[in-house]
Amino acid sequence: MENIAVLGAGSWGTALALVLSDNQHQVRLWTHNQHHAEEINRTHQNERYLPGVEIPEQIIAYHNLSDAVKDVSTILIVVPTKAIREVCRQLRDFLGEEVTVVHGTKGIEPGTWKRVSEMIEEELADSYDGDIVVLSGPSHAEEVSLRHPTTVTVSSDKISQAERVQDLFINENFRVYTSPDMIGVELGGALKNIIALGAGVSDGLGYGDNAKAALMTRGLAEIARLGTVMGANPLTFIGLSGVGDLIVTCTSVHSRNWKAGNLLGKGNDLNQVLDKMGMVVEGVRTTKAAFELSSQQNVDMPITHGLYRILFENEKPKAVVDQLMTRVRRHEMEDLSTILSARYAQKDD
Amino acid sequence: MENIAVLGAGSWGTALALVLSDNQHQVRLWTHNQHHAEEINRTHQNERYLPGVEIPEQIIAYHNLSDAVKDVSTILIVVPTKAIREVCRQLRDFLGEEVTVVHGTKGIEPGTWKRVSEMIEEELADSYDGDIVVLSGPSHAEEVSLRHPTTVTVSSDKISQAERVQDLFINENFRVYTSPDMIGVELGGALKNIIALGAGVSDGLGYGDNAKAALMTRGLAEIARLGTVMGANPLTFIGLSGVGDLIVTCTSVHSRNWKAGNLLGKGNDLNQVLDKMGMVVEGVRTTKAAFELSSQQNVDMPITHGLYRILFENEKPKAVVDQLMTRVRRHEMEDLSTILSARYAQKDD
Repeated sequence: MENIAVLGAGSWGTALALVLSDNQHQVRLWTHNQHHAEEINRTHQNERYLPGVEIPEQIIAYHNLSDAVKDVSTILIVVPTKAIREVCRQLRDFLGEEVTVVHGTKGIEPGTWKRVSEMIEEELADSYDGDIVVLSGPSHAEEVSLRHPTTVTVSSDKISQAERVQDLFINENFRVYTSPDMIGVELGGALKNIIALGAGVSDGLGYGDNAKAALMTRGLAEIARLGTVMGANPLTFIGLSGVGDLIVTCTSVHSRNWKAGNLLGKGNDLNQVLDKMGMVVEGVRTTKAAFELSSQQNVDMPITHGLYRILFENEKPKAVVDQLMTRVRRHEMEDLSTILSARYAQKDD
Repeated sequence: MENIAVLGAGSWGTALALVLSDNQHQVRLWTHNQHHAEEINRTHQNERYLPGVEIPEQIIAYHNLSDAVKDVSTILIVVPTKAIREVCRQLRDFLGEEVTVVHGTKGIEPGTWKRVSEMIEEELADSYDGDIVVLSGPSHAEEVSLRHPTTVTVSSDKISQAERVQDLFINENFRVYTSPDMIGVELGGALKNIIALGAGVSDGLGYGDNAKAALMTRGLAEIARLGTVMGANPLTFIGLSGVGDLIVTCTSVHSRNWKAGNLLGKGNDLNQVLDKMGMVVEGVRTTKAAFELSSQQNVDMPITHGLYRILFENEKPKAVVDQLMTRVRRHEMEDLSTILSARYAQKDD
């Protein structure tokens, strides 16, 4: 049994707190919103982000960060990418020695193109010399809170750190695998949100499952292209935190990024979509970051660039999707071979 | 404009006949059932297999095979795997010179473990010396008939043959790509039906999208493992005819194999399922073939083997799926690295 602080009481933070509590850990669930913390402690529900789910009394909500992280062995950060730096700056002064920092946030920062673990590392700097661990994979919070079978990947530059976190989370319903490829695991989780926006747009236009499957297949290829350039192992993108997470995010009505894309496809502009969603849609900022980075690095990402034009240049979704579907290319392999060519060479034939 | 015979008036054969007719070809749609042919010619509908879709008068249904294939440039075979040999045996005597044989059937033969093109080749033997072309990809017939955007792959041992077929089918809504990997394209289309049965079982048990995504991710890995042993290029399995088709078949309610799995998950046995479906469920025989072949070749295919036990040994779906979800394995990469190791070696690091 360990004392663990979960920072961020959104749906995913709350669901992960439930997993840790199921495993008999003492969990503190921090939110910057005092009213929200009090409500959770009073009702033992998180009405706004995970309605209808009972939160055991052992999970205590905090809004004071120093209290929340006092004497904990592990801090799990699950705030939106946009809030990562600010939360880490606040965290600096309260970090104990021997603490392990884990995150479950899926994004890339526009402008700097940093992964979440890099942002955390920069902000914690001198206060933390351990290795950061990422937890990612195909995992809707709603289903995790219902104890439906779920698999995720944990990764860290130091494999023993990943294994420690694996032991904290693993149970009969929540299966945790380790991967040595931290870059790939973080990028797979972040970049798939772009494709989920695109899948939502296609569905919003009424284009059907054939079109969506084509979009997802090519989306996977362009994720792998950018990821490989950024140092990931391309094989990671055909694992749980790559194609697994892509599938769940593009095909499930639980997915916020899909929902946002769907609203775009139905004719709403970005501001209208964000108004209607009321929650953070990570894919919007990730599209911006990936657009910038792929332009700078000359990586072919037609779906990401199309989405960028829909989101930020008011181009019509139908025009963009139609153009994506009718791109001139005759051989499928031209697309695929680029994925692995950066690091793999064919042995025989 | 060419004369083309489509053999098999099921939903997929009919949808492909519509694509060819849209492209101004003269299409003959053959079915072994005289009543069915007459009904199509009278009503210009295929009420049983593709209800609600108008069939243009230029498409003529035949039940006499020799009439159907007389003077055609191209024969497209789209009958169930089980019927392939019989139809080809009948076809032998009527094959013109210079004809191109294409197929759009997704299966593997139990006992012989032959792909569909190999079965066709064996049966046509001396009567045909051209290269067979396969057409495969994420493509529900219902959506194709509605002219929704769809992408498919064509492949042949002789690339010029594949390109000829690409030219016949390609139009604004139906995008056709070529691939040189005939084995991979055929196996991807066939083996994904096993995983679709499994996805249906998981959904039938009420396990949710997280579990299904995990199953599909591992399913892709085991498809690639068997496929590579059979001579496919592993990269094909992350293309349209691999993961693309897997996605569409596992996540769409149009899919017969998913539906059959769903009925299994809800407690029906195989006979009850086949009674209720009323159409061929290719995945059942493909599971048998892949089970036999992987056992003989020592290829690890836990999902296929679990499904075999559900289908043919009356094992309870819940026991099988629970066992798949809790398999003891700590590192995800152990799973992934096997996919490509047969043909690819890491260059650096």
